Amino acid sequence: MAESMLGLKRTNRCTEVDNSMIGEKVTVMGWVQKSRNKGGIIFVDLRDRSGILQLIFEESKVGTEGYAKAEKLRSEFVIAVTGKVSKREGGINPNLKTGDIEVIAEDIRILSEAETPPFPVEENSKTKEDIRLKYRFLDLRRPDIQKNIMLRSNVTTTVRKFLADEGFLEIETPILCKSTPEGARDYLVPSRIHPGNFYALPQSPQLFKQLLMCSGYDRYFQIAKCFRDEDLRADRQPEFTQIDMELSFVDIDDVIDVNERLIQKMFKEAIGIDVQLPIERMTWKYAMEHYGSDKPDLRFGIEISDVSDVVKGSDFVVFKSALEAGGSVRGINAEGLGTLPRKKIDALGDFVKGYGAKGLAWLAINEDGTYKSSFAKFMTEEELKGLTEKLEGKPGDLLLFIADAKTSLVLSVLGALRLEIAEEKGLINKDEYRFVWITEFPLLEWSEEEERFVAMHHPFTMPMDEDIQYIDSDPGRVRAKAYDIVLNGVEIGGGSVRIHQNDIQEKMFEVIGLTKESAEDKFGFLLTAFKYGVPPHAGLAYGLDRLLMLMCKADTIRDVMAFPKVKDASDLMSEAPNVVDPVQLDELGISIKPVEDEE
Amino acid sequence: MAESMLGLKRTNRCTEVDNSMIGEKVTVMGWVQKSRNKGGIIFVDLRDRSGILQLIFEESKVGTEGYAKAEKLRSEFVIAVTGKVSKREGGINPNLKTGDIEVIAEDIRILSEAETPPFPVEENSKTKEDIRLKYRFLDLRRPDIQKNIMLRSNVTTTVRKFLADEGFLEIETPILCKSTPEGARDYLVPSRIHPGNFYALPQSPQLFKQLLMCSGYDRYFQIAKCFRDEDLRADRQPEFTQIDMELSFVDIDDVIDVNERLIQKMFKEAIGIDVQLPIERMTWKYAMEHYGSDKPDLRFGIEISDVSDVVKGSDFVVFKSALEAGGSVRGINAEGLGTLPRKKIDALGDFVKGYGAKGLAWLAINEDGTYKSSFAKFMTEEELKGLTEKLEGKPGDLLLFIADAKTSLVLSVLGALRLEIAEEKGLINKDEYRFVWITEFPLLEWSEEEERFVAMHHPFTMPMDEDIQYIDSDPGRVRAKAYDIVLNGVEIGGGSVRIHQNDIQEKMFEVIGLTKESAEDKFGFLLTAFKYGVPPHAGLAYGLDRLLMLMCKADTIRDVMAFPKVKDASDLMSEAPNVVDPVQLDELGISIKPVEDEE
Repeated sequence: MAESMLGLKRTNRCTEVDNSMIGEKVTVMGWVQKSRNKGGIIFVDLRDRSGILQLIFEESKVGTEGYAKAEKLRSEFVIAVTGKVSKREGGINPNLKTGDIEVIAEDIRILSEAETPPFPVEENSKTKEDIRLKYRFLDLRRPDIQKNIMLRSNVTTTVRKFLADEGFLEIETPILCKSTPEGARDYLVPSRIHPGNFYALPQSPQLFKQLLMCSGYDRYFQIAKCFRDEDLRADRQPEFTQIDMELSFVDIDDVIDVNERLIQKMFKEAIGIDVQLPIERMTWKYAMEHYGSDKPDLRFGIEISDVSDVVKGSDFVVFKSALEAGGSVRGINAEGLGTLPRKKIDALGDFVKGYGAKGLAWLAINEDGTYKSSFAKFMTEEELKGLTEKLEGKPGDLLLFIADAKTSLVLSVLGALRLEIAEEKGLINKDEYRFVWITEFPLLEWSEEEERFVAMHHPFTMPMDEDIQYIDSDPGRVRAKAYDIVLNGVEIGGGSVRIHQNDIQEKMFEVIGLTKESAEDKFGFLLTAFKYGVPPHAGLAYGLDRLLMLMCKADTIRDVMAFPKVKDASDLMSEAPNVVDPVQLDELGISIKPVEDEE
Repeated sequence: MAESMLGLKRTNRCTEVDNSMIGEKVTVMGWVQKSRNKGGIIFVDLRDRSGILQLIFEESKVGTEGYAKAEKLRSEFVIAVTGKVSKREGGINPNLKTGDIEVIAEDIRILSEAETPPFPVEENSKTKEDIRLKYRFLDLRRPDIQKNIMLRSNVTTTVRKFLADEGFLEIETPILCKSTPEGARDYLVPSRIHPGNFYALPQSPQLFKQLLMCSGYDRYFQIAKCFRDEDLRADRQPEFTQIDMELSFVDIDDVIDVNERLIQKMFKEAIGIDVQLPIERMTWKYAMEHYGSDKPDLRFGIEISDVSDVVKGSDFVVFKSALEAGGSVRGINAEGLGTLPRKKIDALGDFVKGYGAKGLAWLAINEDGTYKSSFAKFMTEEELKGLTEKLEGKPGDLLLFIADAKTSLVLSVLGALRLEIAEEKGLINKDEYRFVWITEFPLLEWSEEEERFVAMHHPFTMPMDEDIQYIDSDPGRVRAKAYDIVLNGVEIGGGSVRIHQNDIQEKMFEVIGLTKESAEDKFGFLLTAFKYGVPPHAGLAYGLDRLLMLMCKADTIRDVMAFPKVKDASDLMSEAPNVVDPVQLDELGISIKPVEDEE
């Protein structure tokens, strides 16, 4: 039975009904959250996207036929009910926005019946995610997911309004693009009209937005779908969304200024958080040396210190060999963990090995000032005192050291270790939103695998004026006009000033080992555009999904997208990707390769 | 030479400088539109997206070095100029917003030099479109295209704001979807992780938006990219954009109401046009019978009349055979064209043959009331009088008739003919925006090719309540709760109330010949969703590109998109699609079929 709603009009959403409306007649429509018969009176919690409203069915008010319908109601039936708003007779429910009222039903229509759903529609579902994603249309009914999806809409609305007010134009760039493999793997789309040719789905609108600057649009933005055919990690999706922008006639400070105000606006409007401006800025070098990460979580301290000088005369072979090989010895102070049981310290040792360290040297300062340590016996009293001073160790503290020939490894391990300890000690205030700009990234990084320099951000990033002179002689030394915005240890966005001079751009391609022909083939149209008058420009892009995950305090980005894919890039609900009709492949002029046996 | 803008800040865009700022110092940046030296004074028109500003370079003011730079300037150089706003000394240019002022340069930097562009950056370009699209980044600098792209941004901003205020949530649906071939051809994306499987790019978010209604989101919208792998016509693109929406707990009037207000808002904000509400509504049947089209242009009259009754006794074989075969004879009055030369009338005869008519019967009413006609000799005086009366013919008018066994052909030919005559006679006011809702479409149409009924809109469209009874016995008679919004003879949007009952949905699939298995395979997740409580819902989608084309009075949708593709679905600028690295295909487990010789 599915009744029509002909002639009926919804007057309010559930939680729009409030105690100022007592005595008024309303018509509400939604889903039955639960229904119970208590002494002949049927209580129904009606749910819509706004929340819950209690309906009361008494035979004397709703009539025999209506009451019979109410008796049939089960979870997830869709109903339309007309009735009178009344002060709640039973106990007031302080957990509900509408907890002090109820609607005494006078008429009911069952718009849609429902089978028993495979899992209950409830907050903080304990149902396995695979099941929930298979029935995503039911999962999306859960109030916590609805809150996230509504917040997402709210955030994009706020962003768009802010950027429009700032003179940005929203301009759509194509989804069917040219394949320019540099970076991640492209998704390809076979062309039917040009057999043997392929489009690629864009990894970002980078080239197009730079072209738009060449074309004089001045300020561009787009909330843009991007695609990367990667092996998925927990926080990756094959398609994801960027808040993407580009500005002409600007330098770093202009980009940071408008984005700080954007961030302030977003966090205020979406989740009521006041972001204090200006946001702290930190160079990449400083972040690496003090936090062992280019996305430091600054909600807690535990900074890294270089103790190489202190131990440079030591005979402790671990330290000695690291220093002799040109590396360093660095440490952190896990304050108050001096009495950590040996087993837990060993676990930290295993932890750092997982990050590539050879081992963990530790030094616990007892309450009486004596030491317990894995290496104290190799050190002089002077050296131990030096280490303690350097790390501001106090009785009860645990000092942890990593030594390695590769300083970058020392730093990244200590960076991971400080996070681990902060989690362990509960040092992180989960309600804090701590932003930091990371600046002055290296322009290039050496790829061991490819035995060449690769662009750290992308090959269109402008070197810093004062470092351009080193681009041939010492490419690794050149810093870039690049910046990331980091929130609570997560990179939520990044960008750079772009190269707008053909000669520097060509030099950059040369340094990363892209031949002239190859550069021409991939980016020819951008290089051509650069010949006809190009303004200085810069931009930034946010990962919207990740940003929302932080705003919503969600565990996964799947909880902030309506229809996410799982790790193997499939959609459990629609069962995409799937096998298609061979006729479709024929039309595209492609065939599926038989699977070869691996030998 | 490309100077840095270090330390410089733009103070204004070109046309933000006005005569209230005389004496003020400004810094402007942009492209050199033109430059000329007149008696030692260099005049430069500087262009940015806001418009044009005149700059004056005198050696005494800008210095020797600055003057030397100014002498080098050519079209499309990018410069930054600081100077004083001054009343224009020479003649005021009333065509420019800044025509009464100029900026006396005190400093200049050349931010980017430019080669001579392959075509001039100017309004109403006469350059061939292929060249312009190859250098789209230059073409996009032209003020008329910039106006369109900026209007597009303005329209989407307005739409989003309006819909957000109306309680719509913007929710992103996936681009990597499941292939459900029904309707147009899908673009496919091979899956690397699941070799032999494919995603499809969505032809519309139809299924997802209906699922969102099942999930209780109540009001959804999205400005969504859609994809169809079709052979392109002039106004089609492989990827295009829809303003897509869906509403729960509504019937037709609710959808029309919110959309009329949306249309009113869009046209007012974007192009200053007042749309009077309510917009006229017309049934599909009425539109077909009076205008021979389901998207009638109502900016002029020339309605079609059925004259079958008048000529039913006639011996004129053309009319007689049409009527005997169950067809009809209908006509229009081309008012005032009674003296059209025979050659032109013959041309109209050729025109209707191009639309499938066997011929055109015509009757010119001379000023003295006598007739000149292709068929009058076969008619009685009574019949001629009847025809004249039916078409309200006056002396000087030209009456045109089509007869055919297929009334649908008669109507469509006359529909095309009335447009042709209106264009010919200049009856169409190009500044008028005339809207009409077309309602009560047939649910199904018979496909000769497939020998089955197919859904006229799509298979989720709800039949009208009063017609549901005929769905088995007389499917062609069933009208749908579908509606199109038509502007000036162009369908700019359409939608329907959806089926929300599993039994009606299954019946619909049956009628269009979709087996249960096939329906399950394609739409299984929607049918499953329908089991768990689904609200009555309805929606509508606009073709944004076409809508903008009308707003901008552009000749092609390519003029309202930043990076369009041409007829063979290629991008002349980036040269997509292209040949990719065989390694990429290996990874995807696909190969290109060798081209077979056609025999």
